[in-house]
Amino acid sequence: MARVLITSGPTRQYIDPVRYLTNASSGRMGCSLAEAALAAGHEVVIVSGPVTVTYPSEATIKWVTTTEEMLEVAREQFATCDGLIGVAAPCDYRPEFVQGQKISKTGQPLVLELIETPDIVATLGAEKGSRWVVGFALETEDRRFRALVKLEKKSCNLMVLNGPEAMNSDDNQVEVLAKDGTVVASLSGSKPEVATRIMEIVGNQLIYA
Amino acid sequence: MARVLITSGPTRQYIDPVRYLTNASSGRMGCSLAEAALAAGHEVVIVSGPVTVTYPSEATIKWVTTTEEMLEVAREQFATCDGLIGVAAPCDYRPEFVQGQKISKTGQPLVLELIETPDIVATLGAEKGSRWVVGFALETEDRRFRALVKLEKKSCNLMVLNGPEAMNSDDNQVEVLAKDGTVVASLSGSKPEVATRIMEIVGNQLIYA
Repeated sequence: MARVLITSGPTRQYIDPVRYLTNASSGRMGCSLAEAALAAGHEVVIVSGPVTVTYPSEATIKWVTTTEEMLEVAREQFATCDGLIGVAAPCDYRPEFVQGQKISKTGQPLVLELIETPDIVATLGAEKGSRWVVGFALETEDRRFRALVKLEKKSCNLMVLNGPEAMNSDDNQVEVLAKDGTVVASLSGSKPEVATRIMEIVGNQLIYA
Repeated sequence: MARVLITSGPTRQYIDPVRYLTNASSGRMGCSLAEAALAAGHEVVIVSGPVTVTYPSEATIKWVTTTEEMLEVAREQFATCDGLIGVAAPCDYRPEFVQGQKISKTGQPLVLELIETPDIVATLGAEKGSRWVVGFALETEDRRFRALVKLEKKSCNLMVLNGPEAMNSDDNQVEVLAKDGTVVASLSGSKPEVATRIMEIVGNQLIYA
């Protein structure tokens, strides 16, 4: 039995009190992974951005809005967990300056300077010690190569690779990649089916290894 | 009996295949206005951005993603309607260039050039002829003044003024402003309650006037 931290859903980075940058992550894959982890007898803590999905009531759920908040809360929770599944899609850019009032239209272009937000999986990966970390990579080109670079850079034990078609969809098609570049599994099916298979691999390779 | 067009919800403006600009509009006020209009015996057409709210099944619902799509579909529908309630919160900036592939992080700032999207209420207001138009203004400062400027600029018959706290909330607090600057009503309560009162005013002042 392990205590599993799952980050899930998107985050929002506001540019003014009304407008923000985000993505279409629905939290459904995070929800399916939480259900699969609970079904396998584990404890689950979810740190989630704003979504309307209904997470399992047996999980501890912490709600956040921004990437910085997600990092802060995930780091706190990771201290008491055995491993992290980072399936959230945190917004990885934020405006350098956030306007205190709603930006009024002037007819002129608006130049937005975006800077990178901290990388949650990389930050917790660097601090993981004997804990395990599973990352997710959403790539649109050179998919496997980029996912392996991320696996290495973020100190992950396994990296799950998917494409943008996974976002806000019922189904998923993923590859689970190991450190040495091997494709541990190619999975496709409904998100609950894929999540169950991923948890089996996590159980075999990381929790009970 | 009138045929009422309601624009509702947010729109999304993608910067690459994954990331987009949007806002927290839930479509709940649009949904409540649709219910109030149906209850008052009107026909309702809703043009909505991506939301998870359940619109009344008696309404005709057209789904869109971007502001340009919302304008195109709303314009088509407006041709067969007697009036427009523009309660949507369309994203009013879009990136000048949309990247075909997911933008990779480089550690460097990302400069985004945003340009204004077409104003849906102003465009339909300018073409309205004998039809009526009710706009919504979400303001964070100089609220009443800015709302009246918008009423004039967008050729509205009435302007409903609210604040950002209305977004994705159960309740709403609004002022209904007329062309001559009078406050026709100050309303607060649940969104269904406020919507019913707004539809009474629209009925009295615009539909059966």
